[in-house]
Amino acid sequence: MTTPRFAAPPLEQLPDDVRTRLLAVQEKSGFVPNVFLTLAYRPEEFRAFFAYHDALMEKDSGLSKAEREMIVVTTSAANQCQYCVIAHGAILRIRAKNPLIADQVAVNYRKADISPRQKAMLDFALKVSVHAPEIGEADYETLRPHGFSDDDIWDIAAIAAFFALSNRLANFTAMRPNDEFYLMGRVPKQ
Amino acid sequence: MTTPRFAAPPLEQLPDDVRTRLLAVQEKSGFVPNVFLTLAYRPEEFRAFFAYHDALMEKDSGLSKAEREMIVVTTSAANQCQYCVIAHGAILRIRAKNPLIADQVAVNYRKADISPRQKAMLDFALKVSVHAPEIGEADYETLRPHGFSDDDIWDIAAIAAFFALSNRLANFTAMRPNDEFYLMGRVPKQ
Amino acid sequence: MTTPRFAAPPLEQLPDDVRTRLLAVQEKSGFVPNVFLTLAYRPEEFRAFFAYHDALMEKDSGLSKAEREMIVVTTSAANQCQYCVIAHGAILRIRAKNPLIADQVAVNYRKADISPRQKAMLDFALKVSVHAPEIGEADYETLRPHGFSDDDIWDIAAIAAFFALSNRLANFTAMRPNDEFYLMGRVPKQ
Amino acid sequence: MTTPRFAAPPLEQLPDDVRTRLLAVQEKSGFVPNVFLTLAYRPEEFRAFFAYHDALMEKDSGLSKAEREMIVVTTSAANQCQYCVIAHGAILRIRAKNPLIADQVAVNYRKADISPRQKAMLDFALKVSVHAPEIGEADYETLRPHGFSDDDIWDIAAIAAFFALSNRLANFTAMRPNDEFYLMGRVPKQ
Amino acid sequence: MTTPRFAAPPLEQLPDDVRTRLLAVQEKSGFVPNVFLTLAYRPEEFRAFFAYHDALMEKDSGLSKAEREMIVVTTSAANQCQYCVIAHGAILRIRAKNPLIADQVAVNYRKADISPRQKAMLDFALKVSVHAPEIGEADYETLRPHGFSDDDIWDIAAIAAFFALSNRLANFTAMRPNDEFYLMGRVPKQ
Amino acid sequence: MTTPRFAAPPLEQLPDDVRTRLLAVQEKSGFVPNVFLTLAYRPEEFRAFFAYHDALMEKDSGLSKAEREMIVVTTSAANQCQYCVIAHGAILRIRAKNPLIADQVAVNYRKADISPRQKAMLDFALKVSVHAPEIGEADYETLRPHGFSDDDIWDIAAIAAFFALSNRLANFTAMRPNDEFYLMGRVPKQ
Repeated sequence: MTTPRFAAPPLEQLPDDVRTRLLAVQEKSGFVPNVFLTLAYRPEEFRAFFAYHDALMEKDSGLSKAEREMIVVTTSAANQCQYCVIAHGAILRIRAKNPLIADQVAVNYRKADISPRQKAMLDFALKVSVHAPEIGEADYETLRPHGFSDDDIWDIAAIAAFFALSNRLANFTAMRPNDEFYLMGRVPKQ
Repeated sequence: MTTPRFAAPPLEQLPDDVRTRLLAVQEKSGFVPNVFLTLAYRPEEFRAFFAYHDALMEKDSGLSKAEREMIVVTTSAANQCQYCVIAHGAILRIRAKNPLIADQVAVNYRKADISPRQKAMLDFALKVSVHAPEIGEADYETLRPHGFSDDDIWDIAAIAAFFALSNRLANFTAMRPNDEFYLMGRVPKQ
Repeated sequence: MTTPRFAAPPLEQLPDDVRTRLLAVQEKSGFVPNVFLTLAYRPEEFRAFFAYHDALMEKDSGLSKAEREMIVVTTSAANQCQYCVIAHGAILRIRAKNPLIADQVAVNYRKADISPRQKAMLDFALKVSVHAPEIGEADYETLRPHGFSDDDIWDIAAIAAFFALSNRLANFTAMRPNDEFYLMGRVPKQ
Repeated sequence: MTTPRFAAPPLEQLPDDVRTRLLAVQEKSGFVPNVFLTLAYRPEEFRAFFAYHDALMEKDSGLSKAEREMIVVTTSAANQCQYCVIAHGAILRIRAKNPLIADQVAVNYRKADISPRQKAMLDFALKVSVHAPEIGEADYETLRPHGFSDDDIWDIAAIAAFFALSNRLANFTAMRPNDEFYLMGRVPKQ
Repeated sequence: MTTPRFAAPPLEQLPDDVRTRLLAVQEKSGFVPNVFLTLAYRPEEFRAFFAYHDALMEKDSGLSKAEREMIVVTTSAANQCQYCVIAHGAILRIRAKNPLIADQVAVNYRKADISPRQKAMLDFALKVSVHAPEIGEADYETLRPHGFSDDDIWDIAAIAAFFALSNRLANFTAMRPNDEFYLMGRVPKQ
Repeated sequence: MTTPRFAAPPLEQLPDDVRTRLLAVQEKSGFVPNVFLTLAYRPEEFRAFFAYHDALMEKDSGLSKAEREMIVVTTSAANQCQYCVIAHGAILRIRAKNPLIADQVAVNYRKADISPRQKAMLDFALKVSVHAPEIGEADYETLRPHGFSDDDIWDIAAIAAFFALSNRLANFTAMRPNDEFYLMGRVPKQ
């Protein structure tokens, strides 16, 4: 098993707010996802990262939470980010209440069981992720017939952009997905 | 759910040997993987495809069956082949008795919990899959210190080459992974 | 001259059916194309390979034999497969009774002296060969106005897929085109 | 002149902290860089973005401020981000007290008048920006002989990762560099 | 500062016509652009290069001189040619009487303050520069509604083609832009 | 058969020197290669193009004429230039007195029957043709052990650079290789 390249300081040496967030997520999930431990190496960046994450992923939006996770999984797969695909794959299965969807969009969203609106959303998200310099008015126009507002379009693009950051962080730190993620959302809770 | 682009003929219209193989796999697995149904559209190609598959994947080899499935999953992910990644991911989990390995190599084998020998094997397999024209003596030399014989090297390369075919078949036919594959090998049998 | 990386066993040690095929092709062509010798190293794979090849290239089809060879030469050139471009270039010249066509499609089929229908066929074949994950309904629709049936489309795609395998086999084995191929079909038989 | 795709709300409707930052930067620079106006469209994201930016770019580090701006300009040029190259090019010229450096690294940092240590830094930053999945131990080893600590390496990678986000934001919003940036740092202050 | 890889012979050893051209350009510009010194290493190639350059860039044409320089800067940036982007960026600023235009088209011409006609021109020029084998009738058709004649189209393409040569010369010789270019055309002449 | 996109003026309307060269080449070769007719559309460019060509291809050099043609065929194949591969393939066969060599290097020079020195030469030429911005001292160092002087290296690079121009000219004009080229050098003269 790979040793993390940058080890988080011991819990008692972390700033209070960082420790509090770690404990809260452990309380809620039963484990601490490694992204929290890795970024705790840099408390200032930790705070900014999760503030940004929550601003995009937790708020109300014209995109459902499941749709936002589809964007994460699709673009993170294009960037071969192991942590993001496996961790957010778990969240996507839960949000969508669909045990198949995450593997489908991770491998090839064009063949996934999603709506034409969602395919258009993922086409655009992927273009932001890998061909952003070529985005132009024509891309915006392909989204509008599906009912996406300007705010929705910002959300799609900003999530793709934020995970462009996140994918690179996870790749250079060799961030490891926690074992718990692999099975989450695949079998009905008993 | 996507309708298959090319529908297999009804079971009773299939040649005897094709029908027999379909029934045998159903007997063994409890379902008929869609690759059998899709290729049944063309019985001659069905026979050659599975003869080739079995010649590489079922025989004795210096590569374990789990290692051969790692090659399939890694190269099929590079080719974004939904059917192959999900179906062979299931087989890999079972062969390796490891519920995590398939998702790891599918997203980024460089970060997977595998040996240096297996990473060298997958580096070579991926080069055969996506940069075959550049393969030369230097590539063979990186494999030998890991104990791979010439026959092992043929196996690595031939599996990568065979799934280059298989990935394209699955993509142009929009072959759909059966729902059963997603969970196979993830939870201990009871 | 490059020594073959994997030497075929002596003729008398080959299984009967393999030896018989080698002798038959020698009888017919006056020489044994190296693909037969290279694959004889693995008789099981030899049988499956040629069964698959014949199922696609020898049967009746909505595509002429020359058209099928155009697909081989175009996609093999994209994969920089020396054996396939030179050997099938020879066959294409003969099938098409055209001494110029093979070199044209090998370098850039978009500029070759072929019909718009054949260009559409090669556009699709090349997409199967190098961008298969992106194939979708729109690609099928560009083919239909040219009169291609679903069976024809399968043929185009399956030939491109089969030579994706073949090109990789030839590249990793450093398969050498026989000298005889270079001139075949270039000058009228006397 | 391109109209911004997402218009910032009027100053008086912005949250106090956002308005305060806009006014502070105007006071200091004599103009409000458009990145502040564009992101003001989304105050939560504005706060997270600049907190992240400052955590990386303003703190003490083993990398000089000029070196950090070199990373920004090099990776932003690879991502064809007009705003980032032109705005941070200005900052780089000022930080480095060098009127030529920004244009050099923007076009091809390999030919720029920088030290071998800086070239190694930019090689790594560019790999994080465009080939992050392939980063491994070997990349870390090329940096250490140049005296980079683990903390320095995090800084290089995190800046490249943060601007992967920033470049995509600027591209999808069609963010326009302010006219003031083009000449900054090119001529001695009088 | 990089030493030039190939040093020009001393002025007095140059053929008369080459020396005369060097002196004339020095007289006119106040310095000798390094492209003249580098190519003086090979007088025959020097003569052919500048004859070709002048035939395209100095003659009357349906494209303004500023438009021709836009093609040079856009395609040279795609080819990461430091000399060409910086030297011709200076000339573009002067020809267009616009201090911003060169940096804009160098980073991403799609976001530059240019006309739709000029964007179509640069789309085509870039395709000639990086995807010439795919050029076909459809590309010509996108240009005609903007009023480009066949002669104009030749000019666009030939300039892109000529700088494909020039960019490679500058890159393999590590040609260095003269310091004078960086500021030219950025500030009004006094 | 494709109509040329830009038709040469009638012979009698051409400038004397251009007409003289056309007639001389026809006298020598028995036909006028289409590159002469296509470029005659622009006499100034015609003169510069052939002056440049002759300066590189006709002079004495540390590279044999056959080696120079290998560079042309290899890089033109990478650029999918039908005219250049077929016309210079003919010249290469003649210069090398080898009927096989041109097809070999056109498809994959790494598998051609050439010396290690020639492979190193073609590796470098191909890098100039398709990855010039990354050329650095390390590339020069791989050439020196093969006995290439600085002048030889210039020749390799300059030929690759010149045909970068030539390939693009041929592609945008849809220049057609004359039928005569296909068979030249393939059969012994009688």
